[in-house]
Amino acid sequence: MSEQLVLHEYAASGNCYKVRLTAALIGVPIERREYDIMKGETRTPEFLAKVNANGRIPVLEVGDRFIPESNAACHYLADGSKLIPADRFEHADMLRWMFWEQYNHEPNIATLRFWIRWIGLEQLHEAQRLQMAPKRQAGNAALKLMDGHLSGRDWFVGDAISLADICLFAYTHVADEADFDLELYPSVIRWMEQIMTMDGYIAMEA
Amino acid sequence: MSEQLVLHEYAASGNCYKVRLTAALIGVPIERREYDIMKGETRTPEFLAKVNANGRIPVLEVGDRFIPESNAACHYLADGSKLIPADRFEHADMLRWMFWEQYNHEPNIATLRFWIRWIGLEQLHEAQRLQMAPKRQAGNAALKLMDGHLSGRDWFVGDAISLADICLFAYTHVADEADFDLELYPSVIRWMEQIMTMDGYIAMEA
Repeated sequence: MSEQLVLHEYAASGNCYKVRLTAALIGVPIERREYDIMKGETRTPEFLAKVNANGRIPVLEVGDRFIPESNAACHYLADGSKLIPADRFEHADMLRWMFWEQYNHEPNIATLRFWIRWIGLEQLHEAQRLQMAPKRQAGNAALKLMDGHLSGRDWFVGDAISLADICLFAYTHVADEADFDLELYPSVIRWMEQIMTMDGYIAMEA
Repeated sequence: MSEQLVLHEYAASGNCYKVRLTAALIGVPIERREYDIMKGETRTPEFLAKVNANGRIPVLEVGDRFIPESNAACHYLADGSKLIPADRFEHADMLRWMFWEQYNHEPNIATLRFWIRWIGLEQLHEAQRLQMAPKRQAGNAALKLMDGHLSGRDWFVGDAISLADICLFAYTHVADEADFDLELYPSVIRWMEQIMTMDGYIAMEA
């Protein structure tokens, strides 16, 4: 890639880690620019006007253009690599899991992690407190669905790692920080171990 | 496309309409199979085992394989057509808006529509009632962000219609059914009128 790549991020965010892990696995160097989301650094007028009107990270800067949304940034990076299947059905099937991740997995597992470890239970509003139990249930349903799908297969789509695996791995492998018991999902554990021993793998803290 | 296409759907769902509208705009015939979600017809053991373990529609059946997640089904249908930009950045930018739709738009606007028109306010649980105001605010923020982006441009990505427009159109054009005032967003109205006068356009009720 000839254009300079800058990841606007908050390192502890699983959504940001997806983009770093994708870049690492395909061997593309990216610059990193850190924002403190707890201090509102992604809601400043400058950030909203220039980087992302939606006030969120990650955003991948490509030359002088910007790609918000973690899974879209991963798609840009991996385009043309083995992480995106060339087959039409498998490409759509990969996207299926990535949309499912943003709708059924992240809002439950990542949000509970954020509420428990960053905000703190005693700081939650009543509306949030009442969502703890439904999000716990939906998060476990998501992990159970993953475990069922992975039982008897190595990867989410076809027979090789794709962005579907990377995007689902990001918040799954820290689900214990949201007090989910991953021991209940043995096929998920086996699948995570496969990813963590791959050439080019980087840890979230790296 | 040589394989038979069957859309498993609930016609009043905007997510299902996206898939029908995509097929109509590219001139691909699809069979339709209706489920009554209010009677739990997508949560039967047969549906979960065969069509979608996640218990949701739409699902696009392609030959003997299944693609859940509306935006992924649209991607399968439109692959190779003008509705998906060939340019690498624009492809990712299109996906960016589609992921944004599922995370920032649908859970607010579509969910309020469902709660108000299908479930009924008096039937909501306390946890849902407390989410009405945050979802109203987030829904308006989403419409405002769309309006700002469309001010001075015709389409979400590049200079032509893409799946980003179709996927965002589905629930935006019925946002009044969720008691959103679309008159506040004039660029959104202009953009919707462009779509509704296109060759091949079909209404949600068609």
